[in-house]
Amino acid sequence: MRPSARQTDEMRAVSIEVGFTKHAEGSCLIKMGETHVLCTASLEARVPPFLKNSGLGWVTAEYGMLPRATHTRMRRESAAGKQSGRTQEIQRLIGRSLRAGVDRVALGERQITVDCDVIQADGGTRCAAITGGWIALRLAVNKLMKTGEVISDPLLDPVSAISCGIYAGQPVLDLDYPEDSEAGVDANFVMTGSGKLIEVQMSAEGSTFSREQMNALMDLAEKGSAELTAAQLAAVA
Amino acid sequence: MRPSARQTDEMRAVSIEVGFTKHAEGSCLIKMGETHVLCTASLEARVPPFLKNSGLGWVTAEYGMLPRATHTRMRRESAAGKQSGRTQEIQRLIGRSLRAGVDRVALGERQITVDCDVIQADGGTRCAAITGGWIALRLAVNKLMKTGEVISDPLLDPVSAISCGIYAGQPVLDLDYPEDSEAGVDANFVMTGSGKLIEVQMSAEGSTFSREQMNALMDLAEKGSAELTAAQLAAVA
Amino acid sequence: MRPSARQTDEMRAVSIEVGFTKHAEGSCLIKMGETHVLCTASLEARVPPFLKNSGLGWVTAEYGMLPRATHTRMRRESAAGKQSGRTQEIQRLIGRSLRAGVDRVALGERQITVDCDVIQADGGTRCAAITGGWIALRLAVNKLMKTGEVISDPLLDPVSAISCGIYAGQPVLDLDYPEDSEAGVDANFVMTGSGKLIEVQMSAEGSTFSREQMNALMDLAEKGSAELTAAQLAAVA
Amino acid sequence: MRPSARQTDEMRAVSIEVGFTKHAEGSCLIKMGETHVLCTASLEARVPPFLKNSGLGWVTAEYGMLPRATHTRMRRESAAGKQSGRTQEIQRLIGRSLRAGVDRVALGERQITVDCDVIQADGGTRCAAITGGWIALRLAVNKLMKTGEVISDPLLDPVSAISCGIYAGQPVLDLDYPEDSEAGVDANFVMTGSGKLIEVQMSAEGSTFSREQMNALMDLAEKGSAELTAAQLAAVA
Amino acid sequence: MRPSARQTDEMRAVSIEVGFTKHAEGSCLIKMGETHVLCTASLEARVPPFLKNSGLGWVTAEYGMLPRATHTRMRRESAAGKQSGRTQEIQRLIGRSLRAGVDRVALGERQITVDCDVIQADGGTRCAAITGGWIALRLAVNKLMKTGEVISDPLLDPVSAISCGIYAGQPVLDLDYPEDSEAGVDANFVMTGSGKLIEVQMSAEGSTFSREQMNALMDLAEKGSAELTAAQLAAVA
Amino acid sequence: MRPSARQTDEMRAVSIEVGFTKHAEGSCLIKMGETHVLCTASLEARVPPFLKNSGLGWVTAEYGMLPRATHTRMRRESAAGKQSGRTQEIQRLIGRSLRAGVDRVALGERQITVDCDVIQADGGTRCAAITGGWIALRLAVNKLMKTGEVISDPLLDPVSAISCGIYAGQPVLDLDYPEDSEAGVDANFVMTGSGKLIEVQMSAEGSTFSREQMNALMDLAEKGSAELTAAQLAAVA
Repeated sequence: MRPSARQTDEMRAVSIEVGFTKHAEGSCLIKMGETHVLCTASLEARVPPFLKNSGLGWVTAEYGMLPRATHTRMRRESAAGKQSGRTQEIQRLIGRSLRAGVDRVALGERQITVDCDVIQADGGTRCAAITGGWIALRLAVNKLMKTGEVISDPLLDPVSAISCGIYAGQPVLDLDYPEDSEAGVDANFVMTGSGKLIEVQMSAEGSTFSREQMNALMDLAEKGSAELTAAQLAAVA
Repeated sequence: MRPSARQTDEMRAVSIEVGFTKHAEGSCLIKMGETHVLCTASLEARVPPFLKNSGLGWVTAEYGMLPRATHTRMRRESAAGKQSGRTQEIQRLIGRSLRAGVDRVALGERQITVDCDVIQADGGTRCAAITGGWIALRLAVNKLMKTGEVISDPLLDPVSAISCGIYAGQPVLDLDYPEDSEAGVDANFVMTGSGKLIEVQMSAEGSTFSREQMNALMDLAEKGSAELTAAQLAAVA
Repeated sequence: MRPSARQTDEMRAVSIEVGFTKHAEGSCLIKMGETHVLCTASLEARVPPFLKNSGLGWVTAEYGMLPRATHTRMRRESAAGKQSGRTQEIQRLIGRSLRAGVDRVALGERQITVDCDVIQADGGTRCAAITGGWIALRLAVNKLMKTGEVISDPLLDPVSAISCGIYAGQPVLDLDYPEDSEAGVDANFVMTGSGKLIEVQMSAEGSTFSREQMNALMDLAEKGSAELTAAQLAAVA
Repeated sequence: MRPSARQTDEMRAVSIEVGFTKHAEGSCLIKMGETHVLCTASLEARVPPFLKNSGLGWVTAEYGMLPRATHTRMRRESAAGKQSGRTQEIQRLIGRSLRAGVDRVALGERQITVDCDVIQADGGTRCAAITGGWIALRLAVNKLMKTGEVISDPLLDPVSAISCGIYAGQPVLDLDYPEDSEAGVDANFVMTGSGKLIEVQMSAEGSTFSREQMNALMDLAEKGSAELTAAQLAAVA
Repeated sequence: MRPSARQTDEMRAVSIEVGFTKHAEGSCLIKMGETHVLCTASLEARVPPFLKNSGLGWVTAEYGMLPRATHTRMRRESAAGKQSGRTQEIQRLIGRSLRAGVDRVALGERQITVDCDVIQADGGTRCAAITGGWIALRLAVNKLMKTGEVISDPLLDPVSAISCGIYAGQPVLDLDYPEDSEAGVDANFVMTGSGKLIEVQMSAEGSTFSREQMNALMDLAEKGSAELTAAQLAAVA
Repeated sequence: MRPSARQTDEMRAVSIEVGFTKHAEGSCLIKMGETHVLCTASLEARVPPFLKNSGLGWVTAEYGMLPRATHTRMRRESAAGKQSGRTQEIQRLIGRSLRAGVDRVALGERQITVDCDVIQADGGTRCAAITGGWIALRLAVNKLMKTGEVISDPLLDPVSAISCGIYAGQPVLDLDYPEDSEAGVDANFVMTGSGKLIEVQMSAEGSTFSREQMNALMDLAEKGSAELTAAQLAAVA
């Protein structure tokens, strides 16, 4: 039934290449099928003004898409002179999601900026960005722990994200672009490795959904999240 | 337990003054307790380019906050030269939510822009904007039906929104600002008058939540949504 | 002769509701007929850099119009990415006018920002903004005097503004929109309660005017200004 | 009494060099003492959208200051990314003033853009811009009449502008920068060659003024305006 | 003598992976040592307005750098709201260079946009972008020729670019970042496969250079250009 | 053969009027035939952040064109809200060129900003800006040396720039606009008075050039540069 011939609860193949770029303190290229996102974590000395002398750390994220990551070329946001509402919404979500998994006292007064840049898009870029972003973050924090700058691990529980949706009337896991563009309901779940929820976003496109459908999507997300956690832990091992 | 001494499932007093401004085809001032939002619906001849000659209508929304709607004055977005990510995220949500309740074939090839401007903020402004925005939309569509420009009613099921959250460990309905700023989990539910879901957004702030808590919030939202629908129907009667 | 059937020297009904919003240190909703402007005064600790350590206070103003305050919807300035020349011109006038009535030594090194947002427009919004803005300022200063932060009253003489114009060949007081859009000459007078002049702006639209006409408009303005002063003093009593 | 030792009713030396640049249809460098403004008039085929097929012409103006026209260098507005409120206010005034002296039916459906760029500033730049701008406009219209594109002269009465002010308690004509920066009242009068008024702007800086002072300034302006008209007519003869 | 222990006339290892992304009509990841640039060519129906109905094609380029392509993170240009002068200068150079090698009549009235995004930077990014950009362009044109949309090959001579410089007093080929940041003279040569010059840019940094040095750099560039042409032809074979 | 009937190695008439504006520490109006550029040098106390407490000076440049400096009016960059890529490229070149001729230790920790504004354009504006900009810089530094703020002369060798090109198949010196718009190759040479090279930019427009042509242009540039140096030294004598 699915364009990709996957089972309704079957995720796309996940591949994670750590250290994809050399300057960043942590980096990976994450592939969820044909969706490819480069994630880098940059350690910065400064914290935002509201955290000066608080002893607390900060994790923030930025998101971008290369102009021809998509089927047809999109205008470059730097040339347009501003980030779209969609871009800002996504990078706020990534930052919030990653922060939920960070012990900011343990991190100490430093900032880590996670950049997620979509090299190739085929649906689910924000979820891939969160899942890969956590890996970049993990690698950067590992460096801080190795040098002794951070003693107690601030990342106790991995953070990953997965999309689900109602496609052709069926709840399915991990939408690709052909599904996403047709889905009546589109949902994103950000969860921790131990199964706790960080963020749930469910949105009907020109229709509505029932509480039963919401629960069916939640069930799928729990399955997907467990698989992503395993892939994350394998990648950073 | 709540700062306002409300019950955990008790909404703030709702008041809706229709026709608050005279130029708009539909308008109301909605008050959810101390949160006051002016909503106007403007009928416009043009539709976005991608709908030209499609026969389909469009509903879009914009959101703003007066600089001193808040406890301390915020910078005016027009002076800053751009809308914040938060503003864009909210107005995209309002537009998506209202469109979900519109039969765009019945509306015909015309656009209605719903402006939601926060006069005074005390938490839950996006929910008040959706609830009041639907009323402005309803009034504008009534005019179109009265003149015969629209024959079949494109608004079959009212749309409203309500926030819930985990405050002091308890699921509570309709957060005000003192609760919102302390809540560990913040959720917004957009629903129709007949109880269907349009959008669910649940977000942990520096923590996580369980599936049981998610269900408890959903229960509260169903109660609140029913009350809002009643208030909407009374206002436009 | 006038569309509203008013006498040539007759002002529209003035109504002033103080305390219209709760967060601002001073606020009012002023109505000049169908022109409704919300004015708030916000006390801020910082002064502009050029006044640091001068002991002098500062009063500044910002002006905005809700998108559907007008007959047809106007583009939101925050979405356009900048304030129009008209907006900047008006807010510079409001700030200059209010400052002219302030003893900045008595105010002390603090800033008060007066926001004037047009809820509904029917001509004369800049004048209503100045007249209402002074009330918001007065209320905010009252708070400072009550707490003893300011000892000597920095607002000795009320400031108000009124428009006049040549409509259908006749000098008339307080133009509404139908008159304003047809007037050959448009004038704004900012005056103090004791009858002194702060600002005079007279502008011919596609025509010219004589010194005699200038004097006739000045006579009307003196009458209108006295009535506005009375309304201001009643409102803040 | 004046820093320049001029009489209270004595204007600075006026010098006008026509044809200062070769590409513009009309141009001049106008000097009011040490204030030097380059004015060019550019004939353009397009009119603004609201005039399409109206048969009416349009005259508009833009104003700029070279970064080191002033005592200390000012930031270049193109580098700042926007025109200041002051710049916009001035260019709106120039455009409105010049249009008041144009028969737009006689001009026909074409646009003339008058650019006024301050090469060196010593007070009164907006007045010099209007006076010089009219000359550039006159020269451009002369070309149109020579080629027969325009038959009936659309410029029947010259337009010029002069500043006055209360300096050291005395009404004085044509403020230079040392006076302008100290003046308690600053006024600009735009008039036609036949003595009619187009625009009057009087503004108190941190003080007020009386109706008698207003009349004294008006008297000075009438004298100055007559002298400027004579200089304009001599320049374009 | 060189930090990389290369000979003065030795280029870094070149690696070219064609088809790196799937949506673009042509794409490659080009590596010049540790400098990695992703180049995509996008075929677009529209041409710029000045070419409408001319029968001529257009090739244009855009350039960007991922925020953490560099040693320390740089601000994202889309967040800054504009492209830096450096970015604009580089993308103008890339476009001009590629166009010099295109027969725009043979291409026909269509536009190809070449996007060059630096994934990892170690000096010479603009040269790598031109060299890789030509490959992406070649691949996209191949598609047009395969479908018969283009008959006569518009790309007759490959275009590549190489940097040279005076490092530690010696002319050297293909500067990497440690050399580039210390070089007294920095030069970029854009050449065709047949050895003709398209663009020469030589720039002294806080010093000067002689005509003899200019010639020595030109000799090195001819050697490097020949090697790049061979790599290009191998990649697209 | 040349539109101006000049010899292939004949420069346009050069005229330099020093002290063209009175506020700048150094200024001149330079005319290269019909290309007229006003150059001012402004002494500023602040240096860029990266030079704080370094003891080193800084010279930077900005470039602009009045809207009607050109055959047809161009949009004002301040109104467009940004400087074009061309403008930024040119002002970066001017700054780099002038800095190459400055001993920044001798200048001491101060900044000089050179503004080059094109009053009338007829080709070669960037070269005229560099040549005239050096004169403004020289005059400003003279003031610093007169007051003893600078002891050792930081400007040991004049800097000038000249364009050359291949016009109608012939190498020619100092292109004017009719030549520039037709030239197959366009080159700019920045040189010192003693004949050393600072910057070479050669660019083919839709064609290519040979190393022999490059050398022929270099020969012409050496002749032109010597003449410009003589004119500079005469002007500042």
